[in-house]
Amino acid sequence: MSEILVVGSVAYDSITTPSGKAERALGGSANYFSLAASLFSKVRVVGVVGEDYDQQDIDLLKNRGVDLEGLSKAPGKTFHWEGSYEGDLNEAKTLKTDLNVFEHFNPQLPESYKNSSFVFLANIAPELQLQVLEQVKAPKFVGMDSMNLWLTIKKEKVIEVLKKVDLVLINEGEAKMLTGAANAIAAAPLITDMGPRAVVIKRGEYGFAMYSREQGYFILPAMPIRTVIDPTGAGDTFAGGFFGYLAAQKEVPTVAHMKQACIMGSIMASHTIQDFSVRALAKVTLNDLEARLAEYRKVITI
Amino acid sequence: MSEILVVGSVAYDSITTPSGKAERALGGSANYFSLAASLFSKVRVVGVVGEDYDQQDIDLLKNRGVDLEGLSKAPGKTFHWEGSYEGDLNEAKTLKTDLNVFEHFNPQLPESYKNSSFVFLANIAPELQLQVLEQVKAPKFVGMDSMNLWLTIKKEKVIEVLKKVDLVLINEGEAKMLTGAANAIAAAPLITDMGPRAVVIKRGEYGFAMYSREQGYFILPAMPIRTVIDPTGAGDTFAGGFFGYLAAQKEVPTVAHMKQACIMGSIMASHTIQDFSVRALAKVTLNDLEARLAEYRKVITI
Repeated sequence: MSEILVVGSVAYDSITTPSGKAERALGGSANYFSLAASLFSKVRVVGVVGEDYDQQDIDLLKNRGVDLEGLSKAPGKTFHWEGSYEGDLNEAKTLKTDLNVFEHFNPQLPESYKNSSFVFLANIAPELQLQVLEQVKAPKFVGMDSMNLWLTIKKEKVIEVLKKVDLVLINEGEAKMLTGAANAIAAAPLITDMGPRAVVIKRGEYGFAMYSREQGYFILPAMPIRTVIDPTGAGDTFAGGFFGYLAAQKEVPTVAHMKQACIMGSIMASHTIQDFSVRALAKVTLNDLEARLAEYRKVITI
Repeated sequence: MSEILVVGSVAYDSITTPSGKAERALGGSANYFSLAASLFSKVRVVGVVGEDYDQQDIDLLKNRGVDLEGLSKAPGKTFHWEGSYEGDLNEAKTLKTDLNVFEHFNPQLPESYKNSSFVFLANIAPELQLQVLEQVKAPKFVGMDSMNLWLTIKKEKVIEVLKKVDLVLINEGEAKMLTGAANAIAAAPLITDMGPRAVVIKRGEYGFAMYSREQGYFILPAMPIRTVIDPTGAGDTFAGGFFGYLAAQKEVPTVAHMKQACIMGSIMASHTIQDFSVRALAKVTLNDLEARLAEYRKVITI
């Protein structure tokens, strides 16, 4: 088993969906990612929290064996995001973003992190993604996420990161923004032309479309879930399940491993959306995943 | 092989998409359905055209062995639809609808059609769907489509038709309208509760979600197509491929047959969208379908 280094946000979210509200609930890409990935692999977190960060939220990850040496505490408050979802839950409307301590985030890797084999650069500013990557000695497999904000104001920098990664996980709208393509299918090969070996386009309730230079498209639907409570963190959970699965394999990642990793990410994310914040994800067991995987196979099998 | 009776529109369409324009091009649900279904099975059409309907458009179906005894000619012009697609091509904007001879369509079955085993009630007014169904003696398998218009102004009548069919093919927005559900996954079992044995929810570029009372969900993505020229008729092509495949089997349709039929419908529709009007569909051969099916299997196989 190899270690996964993740850098991303650690946050409190206030979320409104048609199912209700969650106030100051645990969030942030690094939290969702770590909870998912730690079911399979050893995870190391780089991030920053404020003085208001609850000890129980630290303990939640510690109890899953997550290494938090790289999670620093800074004077001020933890990053806070406020958002709402309407109708079909496919897109969050941001109501308020308080960067707080995240504004001056300057990711420094503890010595012990520098030998990490797997690296996931969650959605943070592209220059910070590069700063983290430069500190890792000899990564075997690097993945990245991004978001519309960076594609609007720092697209050239995002493209610089793209050249240095093996895999991009990105949502459908972002894939179109990045490439100018009319749809996800056309966007995918244009993205691998920019450098990565493979891209996974996240399609929310419709599942995912992976494209690899070696084997082309691999597309599957999401696990059918009748009642979606809160889609926040589904993408980061997907990434966590994906990397957790991949790093748990003995071999260097092949496309076949990545396909299985997509399914694991998808199954993991199907739990996250069934409750607010990390509530459902924090409770998921390997047995739950096995059971849902068996259900999922029936759904997609002719 | 059993005969499929289809009742639906026969039309000329004027369509604008980001790829260009087609003026007064062959369209209508019955045409797309018949061209697709006739690759596998014998098709009988009930519909109406005006005095302006071109002989070459009659010949196109005749050459595929389609029975047109039930296609009547009325004084006046053929139904004409004008629409445009923007951006992601997921939804057509109707610019103009000239019902013309379709306004007084009163579907009467020729004697020779009344023993049809398979019936597809394409998107026409629900009372006309019922009128057609009442004239068929002992159908083995009946399917229907509908649209937002009828769900708005004649929902009770649509629900009456639903009670009499084995299968509904409907798009995602319509499935939510019909049931009030927040998503397609929640809508599906509510639709089978209304009567049909199974529902196929058409999800455009994302593929389809079938739900049967016997076996639950069966969900797969669409064949990846990089350049979509014109999505008009994709749903009716899906239905035609589905029914054509189903009627070509020796056995009474099982859920396993319906799963294969969904894939055939999906593969068939992936051709339709690659050109305007019925141009691509009219040229498709069984060899083309076989080849694309092999590609598709790779896309969805782990």
